[in-house]
Amino acid sequence: MLLAGLKKYPVNLSAIVSMADDGGSTGILRDELGVLPPGDVRQCLVALSDSSQIMRELMNYRFDNGTLNGHSFGNLFLSALEKIKGNFLSGIEEASRILNIRGEVVPVINQAVRMHIELKNGEIIIGENNLDHNEEIRKIGLKKIFLKPSVSANKKAVEKIKEADLIIIGPGDYYGSIVPNLLVRDIAKALKNSRAKIVYICNLTNKKGQTDGYSLETYVDGLNTLIGLPRIDLVIANNGKIDPTLIARYEKREGKNSIVKETGEKSRNYEVINTTVIKNTKTATTQKGQSFIRHDSEKLASSIIKILNKI
Amino acid sequence: MLLAGLKKYPVNLSAIVSMADDGGSTGILRDELGVLPPGDVRQCLVALSDSSQIMRELMNYRFDNGTLNGHSFGNLFLSALEKIKGNFLSGIEEASRILNIRGEVVPVINQAVRMHIELKNGEIIIGENNLDHNEEIRKIGLKKIFLKPSVSANKKAVEKIKEADLIIIGPGDYYGSIVPNLLVRDIAKALKNSRAKIVYICNLTNKKGQTDGYSLETYVDGLNTLIGLPRIDLVIANNGKIDPTLIARYEKREGKNSIVKETGEKSRNYEVINTTVIKNTKTATTQKGQSFIRHDSEKLASSIIKILNKI
Repeated sequence: MLLAGLKKYPVNLSAIVSMADDGGSTGILRDELGVLPPGDVRQCLVALSDSSQIMRELMNYRFDNGTLNGHSFGNLFLSALEKIKGNFLSGIEEASRILNIRGEVVPVINQAVRMHIELKNGEIIIGENNLDHNEEIRKIGLKKIFLKPSVSANKKAVEKIKEADLIIIGPGDYYGSIVPNLLVRDIAKALKNSRAKIVYICNLTNKKGQTDGYSLETYVDGLNTLIGLPRIDLVIANNGKIDPTLIARYEKREGKNSIVKETGEKSRNYEVINTTVIKNTKTATTQKGQSFIRHDSEKLASSIIKILNKI
Repeated sequence: MLLAGLKKYPVNLSAIVSMADDGGSTGILRDELGVLPPGDVRQCLVALSDSSQIMRELMNYRFDNGTLNGHSFGNLFLSALEKIKGNFLSGIEEASRILNIRGEVVPVINQAVRMHIELKNGEIIIGENNLDHNEEIRKIGLKKIFLKPSVSANKKAVEKIKEADLIIIGPGDYYGSIVPNLLVRDIAKALKNSRAKIVYICNLTNKKGQTDGYSLETYVDGLNTLIGLPRIDLVIANNGKIDPTLIARYEKREGKNSIVKETGEKSRNYEVINTTVIKNTKTATTQKGQSFIRHDSEKLASSIIKILNKI
């Protein structure tokens, strides 16, 4: 979503993508073909693609019948390319050429890992897919996550962090997408040593059993702890008005304080930029008529570019 | 195979493709997704494609595991495009653009049909796939085939026949690929009325239960009967030497006279061009080490161009 917005500006983009995804079509391809998870990579490729509308439509097309049911065509495309080229990284390079992408999509690691979810009662659940589909996590609560096997980073990801002028963390599911990247050996270190400014696009909402009642400060402290230094320079927080009925629905499902707020309590060594970065309710409504609290591609990109112009 | 050879010459190519295929990956997609059979179309598209080597490799890639096992990526590509565009013809047009093809691939019809195979004992077997996999056909013998429902031709196919300077029938499985095109209403009529010369690339071998002991003359008479007029002008017949051990293998499996010969018995109103158009045994050997009697792409194309230059 952010990449699609940033693509319109004259910037060099590299998207570092977590490889812990194992749900849906991606999960089936991981299990059956032994390929690396293509789902998130596909979405980044499509966002950065300058190819025809139909090609992008094709990549997001999902079969809706028979044994192919639920498979995204783009996932099959990436899996076939991985098989032909012999490894995932070369497959993505080839896909990037075919899709004529602006910038680069870089998997954070180049081998398969499984997310391990440790609950507050010590139980361990394996598989990222469980985060959103396992009632036990919602009831008992997540203590921490870790990756197995412990893997080192894709060198290109480390290189891109080294070269960057601005590093953007998020927006994304905190435990599902953001933390897994920081758990990869060498990534936290690269961020620590980087000369780039680091921006965190703060999560908008909390998830029951995962980030209950987290404030903006809790998120930032968590990230700094994972990096090993207070490296977050800037935080983009939404101050756009959210529809009260939408808030009520989130609170009902995800518990109290499900909208992330600043506590403002303690002294902070980062700047918070308060601005409207959410979609208005109408454009965030799905085909099924449900509304969600979501970041807006263009508003977010415009905030990032403002930051970049000040560096 | 012929298209790949002809593509190198400065000619305008249109490939009219039978839509009776229902085996393998194609058959599964027909049944499960309700799409038209993509297999033969895919092969023609790849043959005519000017896109990168990797794109052509991708189109022919077959998944070899799990629920995707046996599916050709190119078939999934065509099926997804048919679903997105709403119909098969628009899907092929889009695929032709993406694959940057020289010439055009034109399905003979634009709706699904099933090949019905009537045996000599009156029994009817449904599905083209049976031709090569049903032992009953080999034992009892095929009487005739017909298509159901009875459908009219894709207008574009009729148009292309009208515009053609040269029409080439074959090479291809006689009942599996050639006859189904001539069974489509309006196609025989278009051939009858066409001002083009018609060349038949004679089948090299006979199949037990289907074309037992057919001579060159039997094939040509059969085609002329289907067209409704003696319209075949030229026949390309192989006179290149075939390895005797290969002949012995064919005779053992397909019965006596499994290599097609001319009888030369009766007066003929067509010219037979005897020339070497088969692959030499070495290049016709598969990865599994088995040799087949096959047409050679370049030799065949060169014979066709000689004919074209004389028109």
